[in-house]
Amino acid sequence: MDMIPDNITSSPEWNLIMPEQPILFAQHHHADYLDELIEFLRIPSVSTQPDHGGDVAAAAAWLARAMSAAGLENVRLIETAGHPILYGDWLHAGAGRPTVLVYGHYDVQPPEPLELWESPPFTPVVRDDFLYARGASDDKGQVYVHVKAVEAYLRTLGRLPVNVKFLVEGEEEIGSRHLHSFITANRDLLAADSALVSDSSILAPDRPALIYGLRGICQAQVDLTGPSRDLHSGSYGGGIDNPINVLGHLIARLKDERGHVLIPGFYDRVRPLTADERETLAQFPLDEAEWLAEAGAPVAWGEPEYTLVERLGARPTLDVTGLIGGYTGVGVKTVLPAQAQAKISMRLVPDQDPAEIIALFERHVRAVLPPSVTATISFGGGSPAALLETNTPTMRAAAQAYEATFGRPPVFMREGGSIPVVNQFAGDLGLPTVLMGFGLPDDRIHSPNERFYLPNYYRGIETVIRYFDLLGSAAD
Amino acid sequence: MDMIPDNITSSPEWNLIMPEQPILFAQHHHADYLDELIEFLRIPSVSTQPDHGGDVAAAAAWLARAMSAAGLENVRLIETAGHPILYGDWLHAGAGRPTVLVYGHYDVQPPEPLELWESPPFTPVVRDDFLYARGASDDKGQVYVHVKAVEAYLRTLGRLPVNVKFLVEGEEEIGSRHLHSFITANRDLLAADSALVSDSSILAPDRPALIYGLRGICQAQVDLTGPSRDLHSGSYGGGIDNPINVLGHLIARLKDERGHVLIPGFYDRVRPLTADERETLAQFPLDEAEWLAEAGAPVAWGEPEYTLVERLGARPTLDVTGLIGGYTGVGVKTVLPAQAQAKISMRLVPDQDPAEIIALFERHVRAVLPPSVTATISFGGGSPAALLETNTPTMRAAAQAYEATFGRPPVFMREGGSIPVVNQFAGDLGLPTVLMGFGLPDDRIHSPNERFYLPNYYRGIETVIRYFDLLGSAAD
Repeated sequence: MDMIPDNITSSPEWNLIMPEQPILFAQHHHADYLDELIEFLRIPSVSTQPDHGGDVAAAAAWLARAMSAAGLENVRLIETAGHPILYGDWLHAGAGRPTVLVYGHYDVQPPEPLELWESPPFTPVVRDDFLYARGASDDKGQVYVHVKAVEAYLRTLGRLPVNVKFLVEGEEEIGSRHLHSFITANRDLLAADSALVSDSSILAPDRPALIYGLRGICQAQVDLTGPSRDLHSGSYGGGIDNPINVLGHLIARLKDERGHVLIPGFYDRVRPLTADERETLAQFPLDEAEWLAEAGAPVAWGEPEYTLVERLGARPTLDVTGLIGGYTGVGVKTVLPAQAQAKISMRLVPDQDPAEIIALFERHVRAVLPPSVTATISFGGGSPAALLETNTPTMRAAAQAYEATFGRPPVFMREGGSIPVVNQFAGDLGLPTVLMGFGLPDDRIHSPNERFYLPNYYRGIETVIRYFDLLGSAAD
Repeated sequence: MDMIPDNITSSPEWNLIMPEQPILFAQHHHADYLDELIEFLRIPSVSTQPDHGGDVAAAAAWLARAMSAAGLENVRLIETAGHPILYGDWLHAGAGRPTVLVYGHYDVQPPEPLELWESPPFTPVVRDDFLYARGASDDKGQVYVHVKAVEAYLRTLGRLPVNVKFLVEGEEEIGSRHLHSFITANRDLLAADSALVSDSSILAPDRPALIYGLRGICQAQVDLTGPSRDLHSGSYGGGIDNPINVLGHLIARLKDERGHVLIPGFYDRVRPLTADERETLAQFPLDEAEWLAEAGAPVAWGEPEYTLVERLGARPTLDVTGLIGGYTGVGVKTVLPAQAQAKISMRLVPDQDPAEIIALFERHVRAVLPPSVTATISFGGGSPAALLETNTPTMRAAAQAYEATFGRPPVFMREGGSIPVVNQFAGDLGLPTVLMGFGLPDDRIHSPNERFYLPNYYRGIETVIRYFDLLGSAAD
């Protein structure tokens, strides 16, 4: 989490309302932008739940219509073995102008537990400048920022200062399962000079941030079976092993009580933090008390050898994200259950390799399980961590666009979450990639009562308008 | 699990169809007995689930009518703070005849998981001599045996050879919450010479058994809360502790991987097994391979210092009976959850004290939990273990009644399950207590596809008819 590099100017010389016409257009259409986003958010496009398959397709179709209406061309839904990928472009910026590959996702996390939502997750509601709905911040609101930025140009100037290609997927929340092969197979279609991703947060309403590091991810599920049916815990207890008790021991052997992952080899490829990086991270403006209050946790917790800021973005970790076994209804049922299940998410840092981590995980789990249970181990999507160059023309343009809009230069930071495609843009395609987020840390993405701060939705559109202008001007 | 004591005769001298008229009556009414039990089993009297409160009351009312129809007198439902207690008696056996306090329960375990039932749990179905339904064996079928035995006498001879008092509760599956105080407050009403309980199993269809030991039970629930809401596992993982990971460590600290309970003091009051008892238990006819096949478990598992038979009935243990936390739906959701819950059942042996075990459990859990979570610990019903005298006139009469009906003397055994009231009958009230079960080990009580072997239902009625006759004759 570097502070802003010295060589990025913090006193922009251009006019704050430049480019004037698109900016003014955007400032006059806030009500429309809100109405349209509400419509988009009504569609429960939960990619991980098969019951919502039709809704995911409906969200893709809705966004395709909105992209066409904004003036994007060649808009099409590309079928995959999973959810469709949406493409659209506008390529008439002229000779010498760069092409920006704009990425986002139209799928959302499951809304459960539903009873904790103050208003239904797919009935968007505005309260105190926040729009509440699943997907408001992650990522429908942020992807729609780009669509509206394009529209503001085409409706006013009839042209954009850069060429744009939109790539919007419906599987980001399930590990971008089919995007990787699509990108590999369509390098010409997606050829660009840089990539722009808005699927992250800034520090506070008026404290913009540019993320230069993301953790990678591996997802696993362990299903344990003991006896072939639930047994009476009195008649069989002490004689037959209990898969829940076994699962408890397994979880205890995945990560110790001080936050160290116990899978042999897990840390082998972790690139050590340099003294310089630790010094930089130590300057990151994180108010621990405020941060804890926002998370509602009693204390910060994790590897004591590292600071909180280091643990959140620059160290790998492991969390059990779901757990079930035996009787979970009201009251008691004295069973020795047949089955127990845990879902596990591992967050990776450079240079951990997801495939290798998966192999280490499976080997470790099989090695520690007793013969009294059988295990099925399955894996979801995996992606490596990403570390981006900060001193590039695109990063500088992004910083300038933020500062012009928010009145303050962005902080450069590492983020603990994962956006699988970023590594592919930056790595495989070699594109300078900018993570220009407009969410806030307390948007409750993945949680009940997800929300998006509306002033930043509108500022996001202006920031992207300025970013395109700066990229275009720099090419002249 | 003693073998039958030497001083109980294994060659009865009385006529096998004595008492002739009630036995012949019972043998001619199998079809009615089946129809009536099916009606009783249709009522989903799940005591632990508040939604079924009306059904529990309906089952009590149904049984009250059946008891009156059988000729029992003073039948009444006694309200408690929970489910009603059912009482009825017949007290005209004459001077010098003993009074038998007959106990059973009309409530049942939850049927979940419903998808594993081959036929719906409350739609009783007969397949291959087995009647399938929740409660068929535990305990509606067995309690109805007693009602029909009384009826067979009163419809033929117009009298019983003993006085009987029926005490049938609706909270056995939730720890007999209100029965203890009811018994204490109604010693005169319940005054008797012995108690008869049919809520257990014999060894095989033609291998009767008399249980002389039951384990006690303590039920606990631990609810852990970390952050105040589910957090994004990427943005917060490594910085905030995860209540599921904590729960895993907690479970690992409750019982080790070889089956030893790790709660300090847990074993302090456990009465050591004597060399004699271990020798006797070693002779118990348990076919381990057959037993494992029935349970569907790959191996037997537990304290290696004790044999399987010892571990099942004569050693205490601890099982997590239910577990939930985080996202448990289809697919993945990358949350660092706010909450995690475990339900825990401990089985006790003499002389462990449930109240003390509860205190030790709570102290241990609080001592091992980190400050990163808060815990709510709650407890369900607790009851101590019971060990019954085997060489008593009532036990001998029970053994003779079994042998006359099944053609083979019963095996004496200890059972790992718990019937809370037994300790009160045998201990507080000082009643010689007989556990005369008619279930089978593979009746799947507490599991999907619970069933009752119909030939033993009918033999159960005959056995009780003979038991009453033997008790009455012995008094003359």
